Amino acid sequence: MDLIYYALIAGAIGIAFAVYTVIGLMKKDRGNQDVREISELIEKGALAFLVREYKYLAAFVVIVAIVLGVLIEPRGLVAVAYLIGTMCSVAAGFIGMKIGTKSNCRTVAGVQKSLNEGLRVAFSSGAVMGLMVVSLALIGLSVIYVIWGGYNEGVNDAGVKTSDITSILVGFGFGASSIALFARVGGGIYTKAADVGSDLVGKVEAGIPEDDPRNPGVIADNVGDNVGDIAGMGADLFESYAGAIIATMTVAIGAGIAFDGDLAMLPFIIAGVGILCSIAGTFFVRVGEQLKIEALLAALRRGVYAASFFVAVFAALAIYLMDIDPVTISDKYVEGLDIWLSIIAGLIAGVLIGVSIEYYTADIYKPTQRVAEASETGTGTLIIKGFSTGMMSTVIPVLLVVAAVLIAYELAGLYGVAITAVGMLSTLGITLATDAYGPVADNAGGIAEQAGLPPEIREKTDALDSLGNTTAATGKGFAIGSAALTALGLTAAFGQNIINEMEDEGVNETFSMSLMDPQVVMGVLIGAMMVCLFSALTMDAVGKAAMGVVNEVRRQWREIPGLLEGKEGVKPDYNTCVDMSTKAALRSMMLPGILAVVIPITVGLVPFLGPEALGGLLIGAIGTGFVLAVTMANAGGSWDNAKKWIEQGNLGGKGSDSHKAAVNGDTVGDPFKDTSGPSLNILIKLMSMISLLFVPVFVSVM
Amino acid sequence: MDLIYYALIAGAIGIAFAVYTVIGLMKKDRGNQDVREISELIEKGALAFLVREYKYLAAFVVIVAIVLGVLIEPRGLVAVAYLIGTMCSVAAGFIGMKIGTKSNCRTVAGVQKSLNEGLRVAFSSGAVMGLMVVSLALIGLSVIYVIWGGYNEGVNDAGVKTSDITSILVGFGFGASSIALFARVGGGIYTKAADVGSDLVGKVEAGIPEDDPRNPGVIADNVGDNVGDIAGMGADLFESYAGAIIATMTVAIGAGIAFDGDLAMLPFIIAGVGILCSIAGTFFVRVGEQLKIEALLAALRRGVYAASFFVAVFAALAIYLMDIDPVTISDKYVEGLDIWLSIIAGLIAGVLIGVSIEYYTADIYKPTQRVAEASETGTGTLIIKGFSTGMMSTVIPVLLVVAAVLIAYELAGLYGVAITAVGMLSTLGITLATDAYGPVADNAGGIAEQAGLPPEIREKTDALDSLGNTTAATGKGFAIGSAALTALGLTAAFGQNIINEMEDEGVNETFSMSLMDPQVVMGVLIGAMMVCLFSALTMDAVGKAAMGVVNEVRRQWREIPGLLEGKEGVKPDYNTCVDMSTKAALRSMMLPGILAVVIPITVGLVPFLGPEALGGLLIGAIGTGFVLAVTMANAGGSWDNAKKWIEQGNLGGKGSDSHKAAVNGDTVGDPFKDTSGPSLNILIKLMSMISLLFVPVFVSVM
Repeated sequence: MDLIYYALIAGAIGIAFAVYTVIGLMKKDRGNQDVREISELIEKGALAFLVREYKYLAAFVVIVAIVLGVLIEPRGLVAVAYLIGTMCSVAAGFIGMKIGTKSNCRTVAGVQKSLNEGLRVAFSSGAVMGLMVVSLALIGLSVIYVIWGGYNEGVNDAGVKTSDITSILVGFGFGASSIALFARVGGGIYTKAADVGSDLVGKVEAGIPEDDPRNPGVIADNVGDNVGDIAGMGADLFESYAGAIIATMTVAIGAGIAFDGDLAMLPFIIAGVGILCSIAGTFFVRVGEQLKIEALLAALRRGVYAASFFVAVFAALAIYLMDIDPVTISDKYVEGLDIWLSIIAGLIAGVLIGVSIEYYTADIYKPTQRVAEASETGTGTLIIKGFSTGMMSTVIPVLLVVAAVLIAYELAGLYGVAITAVGMLSTLGITLATDAYGPVADNAGGIAEQAGLPPEIREKTDALDSLGNTTAATGKGFAIGSAALTALGLTAAFGQNIINEMEDEGVNETFSMSLMDPQVVMGVLIGAMMVCLFSALTMDAVGKAAMGVVNEVRRQWREIPGLLEGKEGVKPDYNTCVDMSTKAALRSMMLPGILAVVIPITVGLVPFLGPEALGGLLIGAIGTGFVLAVTMANAGGSWDNAKKWIEQGNLGGKGSDSHKAAVNGDTVGDPFKDTSGPSLNILIKLMSMISLLFVPVFVSVM
Repeated sequence: MDLIYYALIAGAIGIAFAVYTVIGLMKKDRGNQDVREISELIEKGALAFLVREYKYLAAFVVIVAIVLGVLIEPRGLVAVAYLIGTMCSVAAGFIGMKIGTKSNCRTVAGVQKSLNEGLRVAFSSGAVMGLMVVSLALIGLSVIYVIWGGYNEGVNDAGVKTSDITSILVGFGFGASSIALFARVGGGIYTKAADVGSDLVGKVEAGIPEDDPRNPGVIADNVGDNVGDIAGMGADLFESYAGAIIATMTVAIGAGIAFDGDLAMLPFIIAGVGILCSIAGTFFVRVGEQLKIEALLAALRRGVYAASFFVAVFAALAIYLMDIDPVTISDKYVEGLDIWLSIIAGLIAGVLIGVSIEYYTADIYKPTQRVAEASETGTGTLIIKGFSTGMMSTVIPVLLVVAAVLIAYELAGLYGVAITAVGMLSTLGITLATDAYGPVADNAGGIAEQAGLPPEIREKTDALDSLGNTTAATGKGFAIGSAALTALGLTAAFGQNIINEMEDEGVNETFSMSLMDPQVVMGVLIGAMMVCLFSALTMDAVGKAAMGVVNEVRRQWREIPGLLEGKEGVKPDYNTCVDMSTKAALRSMMLPGILAVVIPITVGLVPFLGPEALGGLLIGAIGTGFVLAVTMANAGGSWDNAKKWIEQGNLGGKGSDSHKAAVNGDTVGDPFKDTSGPSLNILIKLMSMISLLFVPVFVSVM
C-alpha cells in the first residue's frame, strides 16, 4: 500500500473519533431551561457571524481562485486545490465552533454532577475541534496528493508533472491562509470590538451591568469568545499545520531527495502518527474534585505530555519501518535517526514554549504578580511593567526556536528545519483541544452566572474558566511559535524553489538572498515595517468596529420601546447587532488583508527589489513579527491575570485603586493579545505562502 | 595640501565659532538673583551627575582599552584611538552640557528683552553643543588619520599598514560608542528615574507640588533634562557622525577604491563642508515677537533648510574640485555625480523623516489630536491609540531610508550606501543645535516659574519651551534614522572586512550571509530578540532607579529636621540625591550594556553560529530596533503632546477625566521616548561597531 493511504486512514480515524465524541456529547444533559435558552442565543449569534463572514469570504475566494487559475501553473489545478483548502478549513472551523456552542450548556450541566464531568465535557468539545482541524487538513492534502500527486518522478497518471504537485499543495495551503486571514484577523477584530463596544455603551454610557440581557451587544460579546478563540485559533493552526507539511514536502522535492526513502511522504506519516497519539492522549485528561488550578492544569498537561511521548516513540517506529536510506541534504549526511531527532527538537521546543509562557502570564508566578504590584504606583507604571514583561518573555521562545532550528539544520539540513515544524505541530490534535476548551468553559461560567445557579456550581465553573485563561495564553504561545517555524519552512522552500525555477527557465543569475546585498537588507526593513503597519491597522480596526456596535445598540434602545427600561417581553435584536459588528470587523480587516497580499507580490515583482528583497521581507517580518506577537500576547495575558490576581483579594482587591489601574491594563491588553498579536501569525504565514505560490511569476519577469 | 587638512581646518573653524559663541553668551545678562540661584543649583547637579558618571566610565574605559590592546591589531594603536574617541566625545558632551546649564538663566533674562533675544540665546547654546560634537569628531578622526593614516598604499611613515588605519579609526568609533552607551542609556535611565521618582515621592506620597524646593529630588529632575537631552543626545549623534565617516572610509578601503579620486577622503570633506554650512545656517535663525509655534518652528527650520541647501551646493563643488575618476563599485560604474546624488538622498531623507515625525507627534496635526480624543473613552483606549499611532508612524521613515539606500546603492554601490549616512548627518551641527535648544528652553521655563516672574515673561518662555518639545521629537527621529543608516553602513563594512580578512588569512570558505542559510536567519531572530531584551531591561531599570530616588528623598525628610515642614533656611542636600540616582541609573545600565557587547562577540565566536549569524543578528537588530525605536519615540511624543493639547483647554482641559487619562499616557510614554527608544540607537550602532572591530578575531577562530 502506498504510504499516503496510511495518512488518509489516520485522518479518517481522527474524524471517526470526533464523530464518536460528538455523539457522546449530544447525549449529555443540556441543563435547565434558562441555561438552554442562553446557550441557544449564543449559538444563534455565532451562526449569524458565520453567515455574514461567509458572504465576504465567498466573494474573496472566488476572485482569488480566478486570479490563481489565470496566473499559476498548473492552471486550474492550483485554483481547485485552493478551493479545497478553503473548504476544509471552513468545515473544521464550522464544526468546531458549532460543537463548542452546543457544549457550553452541557458543561454547566456537567459540573452539577461532578467537576470531572464538567471538565470532560468541555475538553471533549475542544477535542472535536482539535481533531477536525488536523484530520481535515491531513485528509485534504492526502486526497490532493492521491489524485494529482503520483508517486514516481516524471509525469503521473493524471498527466501532472511530479514537480507541479508542490504548486498544487501550496494552492491548498493558500486556501487555508485565506480562511485564517478572515477567521483570525476578522474574528480577532470582531471579538474585541463586540467586547469593548458593548462595554462602552452598556457599562460606561447607560450604566447597566456587564452581560445585562437588555444590552443588544451582550450576545455579540459572548459570541466573540467562540469566534476568536475557537474558529480563529483553529483556522490559524489549520494553516500552520498544512503549511508545515507542505513546506517539508516542497523542500524534499526541491532538494531532489523526495524519493529517497519516501522523504516527501514522511511529514504525512508523522502527521498521521500525531493524530492517533493525540486521540490516545485525550484519555489521560481527568481530574478529581479538587478545585485547585494546579490540579486542573496537571490534568490537561498529562494529556499533552502523554501524546508527545507517544509521538516520540511511534515516529521512531515509523521512520524505522520506512527504512529511510541515508541521503545528503544541504551538504550533510542524513540518516533516519537525524530526522527523528529533528522532529523531537520541534516537539520539545513546542512544549517548552508553552511552559515559558505560562511562567510569564499565570498569576501564580512572580512576573505577573510584579505587574500587579506595579499598579500600586498607578496605571502608568502597571502598563510599563506589563509591557517590559512581555518584551522579556520573548527571550526563551526565541532561544527555543533558534536551538530547534540549528539542531535540525545541523542534523538534517533544510529538510530538518522544515520537518521540525511538523514535529512541533504533530500533537496539535490535543494541544488545540486544551485551547478550544477555554472559551467553552468561559461561556459555561457566563451562562451559570446569568442563569443564577447556586454558588457551589459557580465555584466549579470559575475554576474551569480560570484554567481556560491559562491554556489560552499557552495556546497563543504555541500558535506563535509554530507560525514562526512554519513560516521559516515556507521561506526556505521559497528560496529553494526560486533557484530551481531559475534553473528550469534558464535565468542565468545568482540568487542568494545575501545580507551583503542592500536590496535584501531593505527587504528586512520593509518586513519589520509591515509588522508595525499591520498591527497598527488591526488595533485601530478594533476601535472603529467597536463604534459600530455602539451605534447599533443606541439605535435599538432608541427605536424599540421599553427595551432599555427592561419591560417584560421586550427583547433586543441580538442578531442584527452581531451582524452589524461582523460587517464592521470584516470591512476594517480588508485593508490589512489586502496589504498582506499585495505588498509581497509587489516587492517580488518591481525591478529595484525583486525576489531577493522579498526573501529579506519575509525574514524581517518573521523576526519582528515573532517577537512582537509574543510581546503583545504575553503583555496582554499578564495584564489580564494581574487584574484577576487583584480581584482575588490581593493589593486591596476589587474596587481598589490598584484594581482600577489593572482594569486599564486589561483594556490595553485586549487588542494586544486577542487581535493584533495573533494576527501577526497570519501575516507572516500568509506572506510566505503567497511568495511561495508566486515563485514562477517572479522568475518569469526576472 | 593633503585633503585631510581641509577637514582639520573646517573642524578648527567649528571650534572657533563655538568659542566665539560662548564668549558672546557669557557676556549676556544672567537675570535676577532668584533666577541665578536656581540655575546654579541645576548646574551643580549636572556636574554631580557627570562626576559620578566619569568614575564608572573611567573604570569601564580602562578595562576595554586593555582588552583592545591585547586583542586587536595593530596592538596599542587601536587602544589609543579608542581612548581618543572616548575623550573627544566626553569633551563635546561636557562642554555642551556646561554651556547649556549656563544658558538657561540667560535665556530667561533674554526673553525679558525680546522673544528673539531669548530664542537666540537658547539656540546659540544649542549651536555650541552641535558644533562641539561635529568639530571634535572630525578633528579627532582627522588627527588620527594624519598621524597613522598615511595617504598612499603600502606602509606609511609611521610604520602602519594602510589597511590598518580602518581598524584604528574603528577603535575611535568604538570609543564614541562606549560614551554613548553611558550617556544615552545611563543618562536616559537617570533622567526618567529622577522624574518619576521625585514625582512619586513628592506629588503622590507627600502631596507637595511638582518642582517644590523642599523635594530633594527636584534638582535631579531638572538636571535630567540636560543629562538626557543634551549630553545623551549629543553622545548618541557623536557616535553616528563618527560611525558614518568611518564606515564610508572602511568601505572605500575594503573595496579597493580608496585611492581612486580620494574616495576615502570624501566623507571627511563632506563633513567639513557640513560644519561650515551649519555655521552659515545658524545666522538664518531669528524670529519676530509673534508667539505662534508655527512662526518659531519656521525660524528654526529656516536655519536647517538653509544649511541643507548650502551642503547640497558645496558638496557638488567639492566633488567637482576633487575631480573624482569614474570607478567600478559593486559592479556599478560610478562617477562624481552619482556620489553627489547619494549624499543628497541621505540629506533629503533626514529632513523628511523630521517632517513626518512632526506630523505624527505635534498637537497641531490630526494623529496626536486623535490620540487625545481617545481619552474620552478612558486611559485604555488612549494608550491603544497612542501605541497604534507610534506603529503607524514607522511607515514613512522606513520607506525614506529604504528609498535613500536603494537609490544610493543603484548609483554608487556599497560606497553610496555608506556615504548616504554622511549626507544625512552633514548638517548635524545645526540640527543638533535645534535639538539641544529644547532642554535649555525647558529649564528656562521652569526657572521663570520658580522665580515667580510676571505672566508675560512666562508666556514667552512657554512658547520657547513648547517649540523645544517639537524639536525634541523630530530630533529623536533624526537620531534614529541616522543611527539606522550608520549601523547599516557599519554592517556593510563588517561583511566586506570579513571577506577581505578571510582572503588575507587564507580561509577557504564562502561568506555570503545568505538568508538561505538557517544560521543567518537564526541570527536575525536573535537580533530581534536582543532589541526586546534591551528595551525590557532599560524600561525596568527606570522603575528600579526611581525607587532609589524615592528612598533617598524619604531619608532626607526623616533625617533633616524641619525640611519637609519648609522651615526657613533648611535646605535639602540636592547633591546626594543626584549622586544616588546617578549611581542607581549607572548600575542598572550595566547588564544591558554588557549584553550589548558580549552577545555579538559570543555569536561571532561560537561554532554553530559564527560571523554569518552575527551578520544576521546585526540586520535583525537594525530592522526590529529601527521600527521599535520609532514606535516608542513617537507614541511617547504623541501621548506627551496629547496631554499638552488637553491642557490647552481641549476636551475639558486640566483636571478632566480626559486629562487624567492623558497623564497616564504620558507616564507610559516617558520611558518609551526618553529611555528605551533612544537606547535602541545605541544598541544597534554599538553592536555593529564592536562586530566590525572584532573582525580579525572572528576570522582567526574560523
